[in-house]
Amino acid sequence: MMAQQSVPGIEARELRDKCAIVGIGSTEFSRNSGRSALTLATEASLAAIADAGLKPNEIDGIIRCTSDTVAYNALAASLGVDELNFWGETGPGGVAPCAMIGMAAGAILSGQARNVLLYRSLNGRSEVRFGAGQNRSGAQVVGGLGSYDEFFLPYGLLTAGQMFALIAQRHMLQYGTTAEQLGALALLCRENANDTPHAQMHDRRMTLDDYLASRFIAKPLRLFDFCLETDGACAVVVTAADRARDMPHHPVLVRAVGLGSPPDLRGGMMFPTLMRDDITAMPGYTAGRRLWSQAGVGPAEIDVAQIYDCFTISLLLQLEAFGLCPRGEGGPFAASGALRRDGSLPINTAGGNMSEGYIHGMNHVVEAVRQLRHTAAVQVPGAELCLVTGGPLPVGSSALLRRA
Amino acid sequence: MMAQQSVPGIEARELRDKCAIVGIGSTEFSRNSGRSALTLATEASLAAIADAGLKPNEIDGIIRCTSDTVAYNALAASLGVDELNFWGETGPGGVAPCAMIGMAAGAILSGQARNVLLYRSLNGRSEVRFGAGQNRSGAQVVGGLGSYDEFFLPYGLLTAGQMFALIAQRHMLQYGTTAEQLGALALLCRENANDTPHAQMHDRRMTLDDYLASRFIAKPLRLFDFCLETDGACAVVVTAADRARDMPHHPVLVRAVGLGSPPDLRGGMMFPTLMRDDITAMPGYTAGRRLWSQAGVGPAEIDVAQIYDCFTISLLLQLEAFGLCPRGEGGPFAASGALRRDGSLPINTAGGNMSEGYIHGMNHVVEAVRQLRHTAAVQVPGAELCLVTGGPLPVGSSALLRRA
Repeated sequence: MMAQQSVPGIEARELRDKCAIVGIGSTEFSRNSGRSALTLATEASLAAIADAGLKPNEIDGIIRCTSDTVAYNALAASLGVDELNFWGETGPGGVAPCAMIGMAAGAILSGQARNVLLYRSLNGRSEVRFGAGQNRSGAQVVGGLGSYDEFFLPYGLLTAGQMFALIAQRHMLQYGTTAEQLGALALLCRENANDTPHAQMHDRRMTLDDYLASRFIAKPLRLFDFCLETDGACAVVVTAADRARDMPHHPVLVRAVGLGSPPDLRGGMMFPTLMRDDITAMPGYTAGRRLWSQAGVGPAEIDVAQIYDCFTISLLLQLEAFGLCPRGEGGPFAASGALRRDGSLPINTAGGNMSEGYIHGMNHVVEAVRQLRHTAAVQVPGAELCLVTGGPLPVGSSALLRRA
Repeated sequence: MMAQQSVPGIEARELRDKCAIVGIGSTEFSRNSGRSALTLATEASLAAIADAGLKPNEIDGIIRCTSDTVAYNALAASLGVDELNFWGETGPGGVAPCAMIGMAAGAILSGQARNVLLYRSLNGRSEVRFGAGQNRSGAQVVGGLGSYDEFFLPYGLLTAGQMFALIAQRHMLQYGTTAEQLGALALLCRENANDTPHAQMHDRRMTLDDYLASRFIAKPLRLFDFCLETDGACAVVVTAADRARDMPHHPVLVRAVGLGSPPDLRGGMMFPTLMRDDITAMPGYTAGRRLWSQAGVGPAEIDVAQIYDCFTISLLLQLEAFGLCPRGEGGPFAASGALRRDGSLPINTAGGNMSEGYIHGMNHVVEAVRQLRHTAAVQVPGAELCLVTGGPLPVGSSALLRRA
């Protein structure tokens, strides 16, 4: 387990249990939604607002992911929100959902907003396909906040998949991690999706042989080491915990938020991570240190986790970075069965980005709330504490949610 | 004066006087900085951090304007910040500075960060010239979060200047506002800059004849109705008020933050404002309603104001929208002399975006702090309360700052 040292200079735990997620909403997850990202965002948001027992004009704050194409004021107008008193955005990408929860808590606890809507909407398959290293016009681009990409692009390093492939290769060399161990992660996500009616892979069984037979996309990563490409949207409503008691569903408290952006990113977002001395120790691990320090509980106490899974290897790296297993032991831990629904720490219980749908991690927040309301399709009995991570990518984020 | 009605459903004043701006920093303002926006951001930030008596590694949160080209993690690496636990962005454009103060207060009051750096850096003259309706490659674009631009671009409406020209024309027709009244606003900004050594227009005197003789850019707006184009950066450090007492300078408390994004933007940012029934009533006026409701003081009690001045007409509209004068009377109010340094409500005391430099309004925050520290070049004697606005553009923002 990771030592739960306190972060120097940070004593405040002002956020702990003072805000709650009181509404969740999603569209269907598909390969071709047939409608705009704004329409998807509106649909998921209306569902989340109704789920909270609120009317749209009771929303007074909106926070979005920096990658979203839907403007907060476009969504507000579309929803029929009367007036916003807080708005903001954060990211990058899959880091956003947990960071948005923290930003919402700040807006609420400082009295700037009462009911804050968070959303992520994308036509990730039919419109803008992430990770292809191309924009809509076919020009080669990479995502993220980065600079320094000019040192990597000339060598053909264009996509997150390529970067994580190099890290996977190194993890295999250094720790003996195997394809079968990575495959165990893909398989447990798929198994959970198979029993989750709304999951994109609900009707698609997969065996280890299927996994091993899938084509390499960026060696050693195969097709099934990659997350899905999805059209869809998810939204949640955050409010103050003392107001949450009067709302329709059992409140899910925000126990802690942990964000970490370490000093040695050298200005870049993705590829400069490969310039570190130890590329298997993702710099965003500081998010975990921060989380446990703020939460007052440790990794051993959580009942269920939703781990950001853009790739099997990034999921594995987070098991280590958040102290769920020792450094280097992610492979055997993945293969042990501990992370399956009947194991000691079930993860990605709806299938995650790999098999439920890729809503850039917002789907993980929605599933965490279902788990803590005890309404998930693949329910962890009596779940009280759920970890959600936004990856110890170069930048990391996490939230610990608690059943009230 | 605007009625100080409370905003339904919002009672909390949790933010009031609990945070402080403790450091300010700026680069020189020029037409050609000769260095990158990252270098400018670093220089201004290091100055702000030193001004607060802090070291870079004591910064644990960074917030930027969504228009900035400098990534927060690039700046953190450049500054030598050890680790960030909070980051975010807001906007659009000149709305950002006051909104960033609110976001920082949220991060601090929720215990997510202790010392939050806010910055705005741009090579607004030598690199990306706003308001020309073109991007770097010369393609025609408009700024903002907008959608619906497709309804305006075909008619040649490309820039904010064109939109505000239509609004100015309407204000003149409806209320009898004159060129001389708009000119009075340009002149008072220029006079303040003339006595402010760091201002871009420090050595450039201007008369009303000069103003009237300047060429039309978008009729009825002339060259001198427009703000400057500037290369430069500004940064401020926000921390908790109780820590501010031990810092080098007299603390400047954040009394209130007021943001407003009304329902009838119809999804767009700039031009859809022209689709409103009354185009001289800028929708962002709700920011003012919110501000005074939160602040517990009214417009009559402020000593000095920094009003976002992308154009003379937008400055005038804010005088009305924030209740500094009645609707329609901005013109005579501007010409009355009340807003000059020896008037009842001195504004834009360093020259503002029109004559100090266009740092997208961050320069207004820095000047507000100088006023409340009593260190400004054009100092309002004994100033205790300073209003800063980010425009009742289609979206509005404002902050009320108070000498501790």
